[in-house]
Amino acid sequence: MIERIAILGTGLLGASVGLAARASGFAGSIVGWDRSEEGARKALELGAIDSIASDAITAACEAEVTVLAPPIFATLDLMEQLAPMLGPDHLVTDVGSTKAQIAASAARLYNAPGRPAFLPGHPMAGKERGGAEHADAKLFRHAVWIFTDAPEALDMPVAQRSQRAAELAEEWRGLVQQMGARILDLDPVRHDELVAWVSHLPQLTATALSALLEDEVGEAPELKEVGGRGLREMTRLGASPFSMWRDIAHTNTEAIEQALLKLEQRLAHIRENLRTPELRDEFEQANRFRKE
Amino acid sequence: MIERIAILGTGLLGASVGLAARASGFAGSIVGWDRSEEGARKALELGAIDSIASDAITAACEAEVTVLAPPIFATLDLMEQLAPMLGPDHLVTDVGSTKAQIAASAARLYNAPGRPAFLPGHPMAGKERGGAEHADAKLFRHAVWIFTDAPEALDMPVAQRSQRAAELAEEWRGLVQQMGARILDLDPVRHDELVAWVSHLPQLTATALSALLEDEVGEAPELKEVGGRGLREMTRLGASPFSMWRDIAHTNTEAIEQALLKLEQRLAHIRENLRTPELRDEFEQANRFRKE
Repeated sequence: MIERIAILGTGLLGASVGLAARASGFAGSIVGWDRSEEGARKALELGAIDSIASDAITAACEAEVTVLAPPIFATLDLMEQLAPMLGPDHLVTDVGSTKAQIAASAARLYNAPGRPAFLPGHPMAGKERGGAEHADAKLFRHAVWIFTDAPEALDMPVAQRSQRAAELAEEWRGLVQQMGARILDLDPVRHDELVAWVSHLPQLTATALSALLEDEVGEAPELKEVGGRGLREMTRLGASPFSMWRDIAHTNTEAIEQALLKLEQRLAHIRENLRTPELRDEFEQANRFRKE
Repeated sequence: MIERIAILGTGLLGASVGLAARASGFAGSIVGWDRSEEGARKALELGAIDSIASDAITAACEAEVTVLAPPIFATLDLMEQLAPMLGPDHLVTDVGSTKAQIAASAARLYNAPGRPAFLPGHPMAGKERGGAEHADAKLFRHAVWIFTDAPEALDMPVAQRSQRAAELAEEWRGLVQQMGARILDLDPVRHDELVAWVSHLPQLTATALSALLEDEVGEAPELKEVGGRGLREMTRLGASPFSMWRDIAHTNTEAIEQALLKLEQRLAHIRENLRTPELRDEFEQANRFRKE
């Protein structure tokens, strides 16, 4: 059984992983580190971690499983820093929202004889507001947790992981399921194409809609309240922090560009057909997506 | 006090008005009529109405207040049919989503000496699925209920209503507040511009996004589930029925065209700036809209 987990980056996701692991019966210790001292202290106060490490490398070296949970570029930096410091019986995993660059980095730095193991992961869960203070032990319940560890995705086959690291990877997958998540294995490139549609496009649509509405009706706060549940839902993700999405936009640019362009074209098609039968076709196609 | 209300169109909104009036303590009788016999029967079973009228005109003639709750064009038709049949002590009101055409029709046919009174209304509440079976006594709680009865909006001043009709209008406004709604008075043209932004644009964005996603990932139902709460919220309105939105698109076309075009431009701006600091500005402007 895993005895010690290090969580590097104790924001919303990292702190939620700690709380969810504890709530799922994980009985070992959890050490945390965050670039922001206040963020780590908040995670400690909430019980998401048991102690705060002085630095990221120390935290990882003393654990068996290290969870990387900062934004993508910080995750890629930590992967570089940690790879030479950890032994072959150590498992590193992450929760980053794009996977192609992380999987490529893992293939280059990890998962080879004598190197630590890396299991790229992405829980499809989050909130529109970051920070440990919004962490939630139930965040991953009924969520899909994607791993992009498929053999064809790795330059080095998983079989080259040490026996112990392979066991830790299996244990981590089990713990994720105990947190209430359903595992889906995908190729990392296919993952990034898919999340461009089901995650990044909805986010940027909410951002565009919220920013536009702020321009148009933001001066009159009483008018924001006129909109009902639909408006609240369609703009909730407008509160999402740029700090996280900057890295996603940088590491999945082409797939996101394509998705945005297709949505622009779809909106233009609707605009040009507000009084024609084509509008019915659009509603019927949309209805199919929401068919139960 | 109002003794008898007629609800013409007992779908989601009409049946919810009946249920909410009853739950708010309305003690008089409620007669209903719907183009669909099954719809009226369902509303009767739910207790949204006490009896079903044989036809719309009979229902209205026997009531003091008539609520028009079908889609917009059917509302406009009923306004034409009812105006010559009702006396000056009768109040007609509606719940239609666009108001300029209805207010213009009201000014032409109602609110003059010897004519029935008309109070144009629009509760900012609804669901993505229509029909009496989804009716809810709590639908209007915390919602804004707009009236476009402002004197400057009417060719005939409200003062030309009969004393009794003016009292009924005040009673209806009171009943709406008892249902839990907050009243906002707006000019009908200003109403239509505003709802293009806060209601029609969010709906058509959800329609476009849902239809696009059905094209892109609809073949793989397991992939729909990958998206989390954000995806579900951003596409919930994709289930909305064309039957209702057709009339809205026809009666607020210019304002909706303008709103859609601006969103297309905003999405293109984001697409062209995925790797530039402009993206930060868009997120920050969106954050402002959601600032609490």
